[in-house]
Amino acid sequence: MNNQQIVLASRPKGMPDTATFQFEDVQLSPLKPGEVLVEPTYFSVDPYMRGRMNDAKSYVPPFVVGEPLAGGAVGNVIESQAEGFAPGDLVTGTLPWATQAVVPGNSLKKLDPSLAPASYYLGILGMPGLTAYFGLLDIGKPKAGETVVVSGSAGAVGIIVGQIAKIQGCRVVGIAGSDDKVTLLQNEFGFDAVVNYKTAPDLTKAIAEACPDGVDVYFDNVGGEVSDAVIRNLNFHARIPLCGQIALYNTTEIPTGPRIQPMLLTRSVLMQGFIVSNYQNRFGEGVRQLAAWVTEGKLKYTETTLNGFDKLPEAMLGLFTGQNTGKMIVEV
Amino acid sequence: MNNQQIVLASRPKGMPDTATFQFEDVQLSPLKPGEVLVEPTYFSVDPYMRGRMNDAKSYVPPFVVGEPLAGGAVGNVIESQAEGFAPGDLVTGTLPWATQAVVPGNSLKKLDPSLAPASYYLGILGMPGLTAYFGLLDIGKPKAGETVVVSGSAGAVGIIVGQIAKIQGCRVVGIAGSDDKVTLLQNEFGFDAVVNYKTAPDLTKAIAEACPDGVDVYFDNVGGEVSDAVIRNLNFHARIPLCGQIALYNTTEIPTGPRIQPMLLTRSVLMQGFIVSNYQNRFGEGVRQLAAWVTEGKLKYTETTLNGFDKLPEAMLGLFTGQNTGKMIVEV
Repeated sequence: MNNQQIVLASRPKGMPDTATFQFEDVQLSPLKPGEVLVEPTYFSVDPYMRGRMNDAKSYVPPFVVGEPLAGGAVGNVIESQAEGFAPGDLVTGTLPWATQAVVPGNSLKKLDPSLAPASYYLGILGMPGLTAYFGLLDIGKPKAGETVVVSGSAGAVGIIVGQIAKIQGCRVVGIAGSDDKVTLLQNEFGFDAVVNYKTAPDLTKAIAEACPDGVDVYFDNVGGEVSDAVIRNLNFHARIPLCGQIALYNTTEIPTGPRIQPMLLTRSVLMQGFIVSNYQNRFGEGVRQLAAWVTEGKLKYTETTLNGFDKLPEAMLGLFTGQNTGKMIVEV
Repeated sequence: MNNQQIVLASRPKGMPDTATFQFEDVQLSPLKPGEVLVEPTYFSVDPYMRGRMNDAKSYVPPFVVGEPLAGGAVGNVIESQAEGFAPGDLVTGTLPWATQAVVPGNSLKKLDPSLAPASYYLGILGMPGLTAYFGLLDIGKPKAGETVVVSGSAGAVGIIVGQIAKIQGCRVVGIAGSDDKVTLLQNEFGFDAVVNYKTAPDLTKAIAEACPDGVDVYFDNVGGEVSDAVIRNLNFHARIPLCGQIALYNTTEIPTGPRIQPMLLTRSVLMQGFIVSNYQNRFGEGVRQLAAWVTEGKLKYTETTLNGFDKLPEAMLGLFTGQNTGKMIVEV
């Protein structure tokens, strides 16, 4: 089989489409000392990757036009010239969108396949799980009895945030985009209430009704009008971990909306933007606690899996139309 | 002399005007136990009072139509039925806009006139000084060598923020609305640079030029387009103490502007709304430190004083057109 990769053909304006992605055959160079040949088995697609398609200053450098896209992945070592890695090892790291890739060994982490299914390291025990854990607990600081609202609550991060907030003894209110997701979150994942933002005739009022004591923590994955509606319902001293703004990632103009500072000011609200790598030196703590909750049955996990390397673009686009429940994964 | 008071005649839409204020003669009732008759000597007018003219949920209850306005004041005790207060005592507290007033003794604090001029207790040793102190140090957490930008930098709070930031070893950049203020802040108050937001052809660029290493702390007294321009220049991990939004206090529509969450998110920025009373249990510490800096000559103080009880409305309106440098005071 030829080795294939998917490169960024052009920077999208607005929603990415078929002109954004290009499949190419590629010849791999022989391994140099310190390098490893990896064959990915699972790819993670995540909303933040849309930001890397723009040529803008952010917490990760932009993708380069003509170069392969890349993202979190799990794979098997095929060949190794790097100390500590041998053929057959299960590894994770940021990998190019390619059927095989040569990467530096020091960009990979070895995984123990006996602890959890390999794909969990891209979800609940990986970036989304740690994002939920640190964003909610370290910034949101929920106290028992408080009300926690999470937008994008059926997404990879949101579905974990809601469950951790329940473990903390909070009332948990989700916001999601389909009645199926509403039912699932309430019946399977323990959410106290979920608002369907697509069908609520008055979102501000719907959130007020779902939160009779107001909103103490708003874990924001979405931004835009959904966030406007939540912000109108904030309590004094509310906290907003700012995790994602998926509603705005494909806008072509600078998005505008009601100014939020007067509300944050008069209610002494904290808003904190963050990225999980801010907590890098505490990842061990996070993974241990998340794994313990999974083992104890307190934290349930769900994935949406598309099969086949060629499904990567479709999976990526599906994030923006809510095709996934829980973590979106491509199995190669 | 008759006792006069100024009542809220009607809630203003937009900028308050003569229809907002009404002067009335008023008969004082005799003192009941626990009450004190006070004659104010200095009134403070402050931007937050505009918010109290609206009928909206905030950190202080709204003024009542037909009832006197009220604000921070210093005065002399004329008569007392309250333990601990005697005629001649110098006191401070929130007092109605009246030439004399009967108030509960427990709403007043006795002042030592030998420590500082009486009006200082409305400024550098009062609410504005403490607001600057706690907002900058507790939320902004400036480190030596960082760049601190303060909007409304010639106002009561801003002029103190800038000087405290200098004491911390920061580069301090002010934003003000006249060339006279720019000159004064640079020559008399030690600001490294000051941008005139009214004349800068491109405010974002002007701030970038004044902050070659970007902005680490933005102490926001103003909001609106001035803040939009600063926010475009924020560094990773910047902090924004959200203190005031004077540019928006007289708007009649819900103000709109560019959404700020994407910028706060991608740069891991903290924004925290606050009011000085959040720090009530640390006021002693704040007053001691501010007084020490004044004594050591590290903190300079300036006031704009209008003379006469009838000048209160004019002083209040003057806040919104930048008539004051430093604290706006009305001396009765």
